Amino acid sequence: MIRVGIVGYGTIGKRIADAVSKQDDMEVVGVFKTRPNFEAWSAIKRGYPLYVPEDRFADFEKNGIPVKGSLKDLLSVSDIVVDATPNKVGKENKKMYVERKIKAIFQGGEKADVADVSFNALANYEEAIGKSYVRVVSCNTTGLVRVLYLLDRDYGVRSVRGTIVRRGADPKEVKKGPLNSIVLDPPHIPSHHAEDVKTILRHIDIVTVAVAVPTTLMHVHILNIRLRSKVSKEDVVKSLESTPRILLVNSGFTGIKSTSEIIEVARDIGRSRYDIYENVVWEDTLAVDGDEVFIVQGVQQEAIVVPENIDAIRAVSGVETSGRRSMMKTDKVLRIGEWPWSKLLLV
Amino acid sequence: MIRVGIVGYGTIGKRIADAVSKQDDMEVVGVFKTRPNFEAWSAIKRGYPLYVPEDRFADFEKNGIPVKGSLKDLLSVSDIVVDATPNKVGKENKKMYVERKIKAIFQGGEKADVADVSFNALANYEEAIGKSYVRVVSCNTTGLVRVLYLLDRDYGVRSVRGTIVRRGADPKEVKKGPLNSIVLDPPHIPSHHAEDVKTILRHIDIVTVAVAVPTTLMHVHILNIRLRSKVSKEDVVKSLESTPRILLVNSGFTGIKSTSEIIEVARDIGRSRYDIYENVVWEDTLAVDGDEVFIVQGVQQEAIVVPENIDAIRAVSGVETSGRRSMMKTDKVLRIGEWPWSKLLLV
Repeated sequence: MIRVGIVGYGTIGKRIADAVSKQDDMEVVGVFKTRPNFEAWSAIKRGYPLYVPEDRFADFEKNGIPVKGSLKDLLSVSDIVVDATPNKVGKENKKMYVERKIKAIFQGGEKADVADVSFNALANYEEAIGKSYVRVVSCNTTGLVRVLYLLDRDYGVRSVRGTIVRRGADPKEVKKGPLNSIVLDPPHIPSHHAEDVKTILRHIDIVTVAVAVPTTLMHVHILNIRLRSKVSKEDVVKSLESTPRILLVNSGFTGIKSTSEIIEVARDIGRSRYDIYENVVWEDTLAVDGDEVFIVQGVQQEAIVVPENIDAIRAVSGVETSGRRSMMKTDKVLRIGEWPWSKLLLV
Repeated sequence: MIRVGIVGYGTIGKRIADAVSKQDDMEVVGVFKTRPNFEAWSAIKRGYPLYVPEDRFADFEKNGIPVKGSLKDLLSVSDIVVDATPNKVGKENKKMYVERKIKAIFQGGEKADVADVSFNALANYEEAIGKSYVRVVSCNTTGLVRVLYLLDRDYGVRSVRGTIVRRGADPKEVKKGPLNSIVLDPPHIPSHHAEDVKTILRHIDIVTVAVAVPTTLMHVHILNIRLRSKVSKEDVVKSLESTPRILLVNSGFTGIKSTSEIIEVARDIGRSRYDIYENVVWEDTLAVDGDEVFIVQGVQQEAIVVPENIDAIRAVSGVETSGRRSMMKTDKVLRIGEWPWSKLLLV
């Protein structure tokens, strides 16, 4: 059993903790959290030993939240740390991980140079095997890399011009906006997403523009892709269908044409926290003309990187040398690909 | 086993179906649905036999959705129908229920005269025992009746002046607003909620004003209540704590001061579809001065009436003559009252 410590128990950290605890080859030995809020209560309820800053023991215990120890204590019982702290805190924390010779998985909010390799399970699992520091790229980058990797593998990608319509804030972020605006986010070209894709798919010609809008549920990507050869729509659909973590949705027979409706299905089928780990690609919006492809896809910012973190843990620990086998294992446990109208995508 | 047919499988109907299927004294014999959309897929996935209008069999089957029969077929295998169709369709459907001598539970979107009695489990379970037609009042009315019933029972309510801040649309309602406005909904006083409360608590002096705002998660009620006697805050807290389906939330030690954060907890603890069946009362916003009480509470419009429907089924069928016993049974199965910081409220 790989003993995993989760440092940072917010939107991403709590999901990774739950996903780790469902696997049979790893376990959560504890979570580290700085604030005594409702998520600390939920951690206790789920049975995760709670580690907090030494100078805040009293704050937690005064609220009736039992504390197990400090960050040092958590590191001393962990084989691997998943650092899901806010942007740039991971880089600070890394000093401690290096000092204590403990392996760590960072998130996409950190710069690429925090780690030995930027990671996507489909695209470059093998590069991360046995490494000490790995960075799972961000939600948007994960969504882009999955679909671009498979198109590049199957047909060769000549160029990508993409628009990223970002959710303005996560559901729990009550102080963040925009509330009534479309924000150029960032106000320059390319957005960092294009650069981040190249930390994994180094040779791809990609430019992205991003705007943020007043919604909390999912991002949407509108991608215009030039391939190196002519293809049919059937070819592209086949490539997408046969790839794990891609969900095709046909609005014609499901009626789903929005992020809120796909979330409604996730609620209906009992997905934990309505999490969607898959790229949600609208099949009837997919258009192919010669070597030109249009893809519109949804990416749930809270969940899409969760399976990637599980695979990264396996790669770093060296227990599994095949990315495909790790993904199959992860996906089976998280029931990825199981939608009312679809069969399991992985075979 | 009470054989329950669900007519109308949308926001409310699908939740009632799931709640019925979890009880040990009733079962879902089928659901009736008019449109072949993603909710039809989810019904099939959950194993509910699907009944559809006779002239639409082909529409469903063309989309690969297996159909069991027509509405008449569903009625012929049901002891009781729960009608969760859109407003005013229930009244039309009632003719058929009367003709076939089948008992029915209607929802708050219908006018009170559709039924023999308007229903809230806490306030008037006993009135519904053995009746043929019962109407479970709407989400807002349910939230109001629960808290006003208990205050009236314990201290006597002299008057209620309430503001209802309504969610603009349900999460899946992509075509409904408001998107950037505060709408007087309705633009007259009182709003119908006050009148609706009186269908159950006939003697209460209540005036409500309602506005709709751009959010999908929950309603919030701000209630100013005059009691018949002076009380302390501790008294009121004790009354609330000892009443089923009331959840007290302390923002001081949970950090929760918004509807989105309470929904986040529901996601974290694994509530199906993040459903909240309880009135969510902010304990530290509760203020008492002599005979005057301020209560601020959240009401999740999709879920709060679900346990009431289960109790209504038991009352109408006559299998349970105690409202309290029915509520205890319902609440145990739906895990109502189980929050990270609370014990089960019912003892």
